[in-house]
Amino acid sequence: MTSYVRFSTASGASYGILEGDTIHALPGGLFDSLTPTGVTHKLAGVKLLAPIVPGKILAVGRNYKSHLGTRPQPETPEMFYKPVSSLQNPGDAVVIPRDASEVHAEGEMVVVVGRSLSKASAEEARSAIFGVTAGNDISERNWQKSDLQWWRAKGSDTFAPLGPAIVAGADYSNLLLQTRINGETVQKQYTSDLIFDVPTVLSWISQWVTLVPGDIVYTGTPGNTRMMSPGDVVEVELEYVGLLRNPVA
Amino acid sequence: MTSYVRFSTASGASYGILEGDTIHALPGGLFDSLTPTGVTHKLAGVKLLAPIVPGKILAVGRNYKSHLGTRPQPETPEMFYKPVSSLQNPGDAVVIPRDASEVHAEGEMVVVVGRSLSKASAEEARSAIFGVTAGNDISERNWQKSDLQWWRAKGSDTFAPLGPAIVAGADYSNLLLQTRINGETVQKQYTSDLIFDVPTVLSWISQWVTLVPGDIVYTGTPGNTRMMSPGDVVEVELEYVGLLRNPVA
Repeated sequence: MTSYVRFSTASGASYGILEGDTIHALPGGLFDSLTPTGVTHKLAGVKLLAPIVPGKILAVGRNYKSHLGTRPQPETPEMFYKPVSSLQNPGDAVVIPRDASEVHAEGEMVVVVGRSLSKASAEEARSAIFGVTAGNDISERNWQKSDLQWWRAKGSDTFAPLGPAIVAGADYSNLLLQTRINGETVQKQYTSDLIFDVPTVLSWISQWVTLVPGDIVYTGTPGNTRMMSPGDVVEVELEYVGLLRNPVA
Repeated sequence: MTSYVRFSTASGASYGILEGDTIHALPGGLFDSLTPTGVTHKLAGVKLLAPIVPGKILAVGRNYKSHLGTRPQPETPEMFYKPVSSLQNPGDAVVIPRDASEVHAEGEMVVVVGRSLSKASAEEARSAIFGVTAGNDISERNWQKSDLQWWRAKGSDTFAPLGPAIVAGADYSNLLLQTRINGETVQKQYTSDLIFDVPTVLSWISQWVTLVPGDIVYTGTPGNTRMMSPGDVVEVELEYVGLLRNPVA
């Protein structure tokens, strides 16, 4: 397994490979050379950023049986978009926006696409996975009901925390995913419980919407979600990826 | 008024200022220097591209009374996203995708954002408009009803034709917008009939979702829309902007 991070120092933003507490800087993006430049940084000495700058963000609704309640299981993946402006770095605040009244955390595994996919089979999609990271698909429940589409319910600024690292080479089909609010575990499930697994989701999207390297897909949230309030701390932990922690402001 | 285009030649893609049938090449993007390099091209000698590469695409639903039918007038702009992968160049084909059965054209005025906008007033938003172009918000009506969200109904590849030019300095509040299929006019209305005008829409979005230079917003479609079939030619004409023509494949 290899862990990739994006980070900023006084000289700007870079990508790197994380080994222990050392970051080996890369010369460009994750789809350029993955040979380190030789420059290293201590993890504690840099600011971690969302580990990818995606061209677009998709997400799956209703993809764990434990999240469905009495709603019927979907026959196909139910996709939606989050705007790139909603991304938030590890450690930075999720801001409760104007007029929001019920903002929930949704801990999720997020897939990073590594190769272009158009009308791909599930097997082609499987081989196009670059890696996975942790994400929080922050959601305002009232806007999900009242608005025609979920543009602000799922897309307000800071509603897409991502990170801290992208892990390549893990068994994405069986990773433990946990969400905690103020230290209390509110979601805990293995990604083996996904209704539509990652290759199926990517293949489905690609029948209509071409995926390109760097695009990311939030794969759905398990169980019951919990409302957050200013002052809370929300953590999403994905096995091998690490801990995505964000204060709520 | 100034007209901006993006075009490709053997040496790659560039932006330019269009005067008559001459393109004056620009050194970089529309948010770099707008001083021409001195290189010129004949319009007929280049391939026109979608006139901007946006970071994100928003669109307004139900923004002309004539399009509402018996549905109630919305109290606020109803936004949704189209993915950047759905953009299509002037002249290139709109492809009817797999399993689609009712694909409609929606001729629209599209606004190009020129400055970052966060929690902006309508007046701030008005001064942040870079210009407008024509767009076709292609829509699959059955998926709009059957899917949880409009991700493929509005977001399939080629579902966002854009262009041919961005016009800056026009009176965006009163431009004639027309859609023709195989030469027959199917939509014809002035942008003065928008329920929510452009500054109001941009201000509304920016209360939750930060807009940045290059982001674009499809502002809604008037009247009744018409289904398209392979072999059709669809045209969206916006006063001063010109004619966005796409064959249907």
